[in-house]
Amino acid sequence: MGFDIYEFFAELSRMNIPIRLDAGQPDLPPHPEILETLKREIYNLGYAPSRGLDELRQRIAEIHGVEPREVVVTPGSKAAIAAAIYAARTVGIVAPSWPGYRVAAGFFGRRVSLLKARPEEDWLPDFTLLDKRVDTLVVNYPHNPTGAVLAGDKLRELLDVAEDRGLVLISDEAYRDYTYSGGELVMIDHRFEKTLTVYSFSKTFSLPGLRIAYAVGDPELVDRVHWFVKAAYTSVPIFAQKAALKALELREEVAEKVRAVMLERIRVFKDSLDPGVFEYREPRGAFYTFLRIRTGVRGSELARKLAGRGVGVFPGEAFGKEYADYIRVSLTRPAGELALAAKIMSEVARL
Amino acid sequence: MGFDIYEFFAELSRMNIPIRLDAGQPDLPPHPEILETLKREIYNLGYAPSRGLDELRQRIAEIHGVEPREVVVTPGSKAAIAAAIYAARTVGIVAPSWPGYRVAAGFFGRRVSLLKARPEEDWLPDFTLLDKRVDTLVVNYPHNPTGAVLAGDKLRELLDVAEDRGLVLISDEAYRDYTYSGGELVMIDHRFEKTLTVYSFSKTFSLPGLRIAYAVGDPELVDRVHWFVKAAYTSVPIFAQKAALKALELREEVAEKVRAVMLERIRVFKDSLDPGVFEYREPRGAFYTFLRIRTGVRGSELARKLAGRGVGVFPGEAFGKEYADYIRVSLTRPAGELALAAKIMSEVARL
Repeated sequence: MGFDIYEFFAELSRMNIPIRLDAGQPDLPPHPEILETLKREIYNLGYAPSRGLDELRQRIAEIHGVEPREVVVTPGSKAAIAAAIYAARTVGIVAPSWPGYRVAAGFFGRRVSLLKARPEEDWLPDFTLLDKRVDTLVVNYPHNPTGAVLAGDKLRELLDVAEDRGLVLISDEAYRDYTYSGGELVMIDHRFEKTLTVYSFSKTFSLPGLRIAYAVGDPELVDRVHWFVKAAYTSVPIFAQKAALKALELREEVAEKVRAVMLERIRVFKDSLDPGVFEYREPRGAFYTFLRIRTGVRGSELARKLAGRGVGVFPGEAFGKEYADYIRVSLTRPAGELALAAKIMSEVARL
Repeated sequence: MGFDIYEFFAELSRMNIPIRLDAGQPDLPPHPEILETLKREIYNLGYAPSRGLDELRQRIAEIHGVEPREVVVTPGSKAAIAAAIYAARTVGIVAPSWPGYRVAAGFFGRRVSLLKARPEEDWLPDFTLLDKRVDTLVVNYPHNPTGAVLAGDKLRELLDVAEDRGLVLISDEAYRDYTYSGGELVMIDHRFEKTLTVYSFSKTFSLPGLRIAYAVGDPELVDRVHWFVKAAYTSVPIFAQKAALKALELREEVAEKVRAVMLERIRVFKDSLDPGVFEYREPRGAFYTFLRIRTGVRGSELARKLAGRGVGVFPGEAFGKEYADYIRVSLTRPAGELALAAKIMSEVARL
């Protein structure tokens, strides 16, 4: 596992740090209509059908042009991803990546094969180099932590490899609504038989603590996820599902707003960062920057020092052991604080 | 799996049946202070520490006389139980029992060994007869669906068997607050090394759809559950944890009330049931009656017919394939409706 991001998160939470740029936890308040829905529906405390409320599954099916039986509502993306990883023998994971995939593979004792992405190739791996043993590949575009997006020829390359090898392809699209550079093809959407696409309500709608997501795709994979939900959880709260329905209604409006906010933050943050201290690449999607520290300070050391200065970030190690000289910064505070944080980071890493 | 209780629940929900005695979903409204807490805290939509909020874990540790590291907050009991079942080779499960254990064992491909309980022995099994291959035993007292409780010599017998054989013992104590006959020793509470005790906020506090529970016990088992939460879920919503804290404060008051209500319901329901049609045994705990149908009608057939007459019950089959001539009735409606339901049941089963 390397660095335990969950323990570090708990530690930062106890420290009451003012500028939290560590977890991928959006700071924008949820849309007032979503909060109203939650407040109104919070009295709805009975069990829901384990696959999800009919009305929510129908709406999701309409959006993706599939049948409701190809949809399952899950308590966060992880439930769907963990169910798929459980069924794998060897899981292909892009490096760097969000640690959740490795945590699930570790819990279930599944072999992990890393597929390396390089900064000089826009952090997109060569999918044709995927280890032949891999039967289940997890991808996540827009990408956490690098901000890479997948489109055009690279998306075609991925789909060709997946199809040729008969892979189960898990597409974690939590950041689907965060694209900045015309990377239009981010969703794999049931493109061939063995795909499971996972969408989260945590990011776009600032609802990470509500734990609600959905998976769409191959009915067999969807059924497996449903079985896992029944085995390990029961059903997603009704009030959360009602809030999700409202969120889907507001999606275009909310997504447009969060994209504009993030574009401004990306600009401001970059402007205050010392390029002599950090190697920076513009994120094309998601809301992170993955910074290489040029000064020889380790990411874990820098993260601890920054915590002492009131800034929370995650060390690169959490995203793969080769990234010890990186930190990940979530752009989850207002622009002014990000500018201040960039200055503090540059100063602390220079010491 | 036999009868799919989850699909049947979804079907009954779609039918808008007035008298729902199927799921174990308490009808009493949650305590107003818990609802107030939920309403106030619903804006708290960030991630929580994955093991649970410090203040909640400390409170739970105090209650059980353990250390906070021996406590983990989980999204419902199932998460804790599923994590323990995943680690088993052969899971011992009492028959009859709640289908959740078998669903989890089925998902993870674990061998199940059933330990039979008989009505004439107060539905308590002979634990010394447990299959030698069993490494993990799941018990659930007060018991769903039979209402059996474990105390005195029988509890000693269980603990001796578990200790002698070095079993991992999972004690699902969702119905801990529902005892009616002085069965005082229901909680195993960290009595020896390899025990994990799971307590749910779903039943006593009428919060099934909130998905919050906790597990206490052997630190290694607790760590495994925590790892599973990180792998498959992330963290229990902060607002749910705040509501749980409030619930623990109110526990004695609420538990006393629900016990009194259930005792009255047990009496009224029994009085309206035709003893020529159903073999009835007084539940000593929990809030179910497990009725043997004397007329030769199958439980699944009766459950479907009753649905057509506006009464939801679960067929005995859902709790084990040998119970095809049983139904389980949850006492989750007011006494008047239960009396009516008992009459309808007696009439329909007589046909």
